[in-house]
Amino acid sequence: MGFWKNFFWGSQGSTSPSPAASPGAVAKGSVDLLDPKHLETVNLDSLQDARIFFSTDPNLDLYELEELCSSVGWSRRPLRKVRKALQNSFLVVSMWEQRGKRRRLIGFSRATSDHAFNATIWDVVVRPSAQGKGLGKALMNHTIKKLRQEDISNITLFADAHVVDFYRGLGFNVDPEGIKGMFWYPD
Amino acid sequence: MGFWKNFFWGSQGSTSPSPAASPGAVAKGSVDLLDPKHLETVNLDSLQDARIFFSTDPNLDLYELEELCSSVGWSRRPLRKVRKALQNSFLVVSMWEQRGKRRRLIGFSRATSDHAFNATIWDVVVRPSAQGKGLGKALMNHTIKKLRQEDISNITLFADAHVVDFYRGLGFNVDPEGIKGMFWYPD
Repeated sequence: MGFWKNFFWGSQGSTSPSPAASPGAVAKGSVDLLDPKHLETVNLDSLQDARIFFSTDPNLDLYELEELCSSVGWSRRPLRKVRKALQNSFLVVSMWEQRGKRRRLIGFSRATSDHAFNATIWDVVVRPSAQGKGLGKALMNHTIKKLRQEDISNITLFADAHVVDFYRGLGFNVDPEGIKGMFWYPD
Repeated sequence: MGFWKNFFWGSQGSTSPSPAASPGAVAKGSVDLLDPKHLETVNLDSLQDARIFFSTDPNLDLYELEELCSSVGWSRRPLRKVRKALQNSFLVVSMWEQRGKRRRLIGFSRATSDHAFNATIWDVVVRPSAQGKGLGKALMNHTIKKLRQEDISNITLFADAHVVDFYRGLGFNVDPEGIKGMFWYPD
C-alpha cells in the first residue's frame, strides 16, 4: 500500500493508480502534510504533539473506515459496496492524526464527478474526539483544493440541516438562484 | 459506432465499452424501444408517425448534442470537456425521434455516480419542439429505471426553480428531512 509507505517515509510521491480506479480520477495515494494556511482556525493547543496528515489513497482499511463512521452513529453499509464506491469516487480524502508512532483515522470525505464540470461531495465525517478544533474545516478545504486542482468548477453537496451553517462558512451557498436539491428513493 | 448499427438493425445488443469509459459504468450502447408503460402521458396524436428511442451510448455526436443544448438556450461548453464529462458519466441517456428514415436527437440526460450508493443526474434537456408531450417524463423515467437496474438507491439532482414541480411529479422530494443542496463556486 503506497499510502503507508509514503506516510512513514515522508514522501510526497504518488502510488500507481489502482487498476480498479476510474481512469482520470485524482491521482491516488498522494499524502500531503496539512497546509499550514488551512490550519488557521485550529486550536493548536488541543492538538498538542499531534501531526495531521491528509491522504487521497482510496485503498483504505475498510474496517478502520467503518469504525470511524460508526463513531458518529452512521449505520453499517456492506463493505463490498463501500469498496466499490471508493474505487469509483473521483476523489477520496482521509485525514490522519499521528502522535508519536500511533496513527489514527480521524476524518474522511469523498466526491463523485464527471472529471470535467461537476463534483458532488459525500460522506464527510470527523471523529467526535477530533471535532471542535477546526479539523472539519481543514478537511473540507483540502477536499475543495484537490477538486479545484482538477479544474472542477461546480462543487456540490447535500448537507444535513445541522451542518448547513458549517458549509456556509466554507463558502457553499444554499439554493442559489432557487436551485433545489432533490432526492428520489425507491418506494 | 455501435449505436447506429444497433439503431438501424434493431438489435438490443451492446457495443464494447469505450476504453475511456469508467469501468463498471452502465453497459454502453444499448438501444431500447421506449417502454409503452412510460408513454402513458404522451399525446400520441402529436407524435403522429414518430417512433421514440432511447440510447445509453456515451459516444454521441457532440455537435448534435451541442445543437440540442443550444435549442434550450444553454451556453456553449468546450467540446473537449463535454467529451470527458460523457466518458466519465456513469449513465448517458439520449432520446431520439425517428420519422421515416429521419432521426433526430430530442432529449438528453446523464448521471455521475459512485457505482454503488449515489447517483446525481445532470444536463436534462428536451428539445422545445418535443416538449409538452410527456417525453421529458419518459426520459426521466428511463434514466431512473437504468439507475435502479444498477442497484443505485439514492438518486439526486439539482433542479432549477421552474422545474421543481416537474421533478416532484416524478417522485423527487425537495429538502427531505431538511437536507439542503449546496453549491461552491470559485471566487
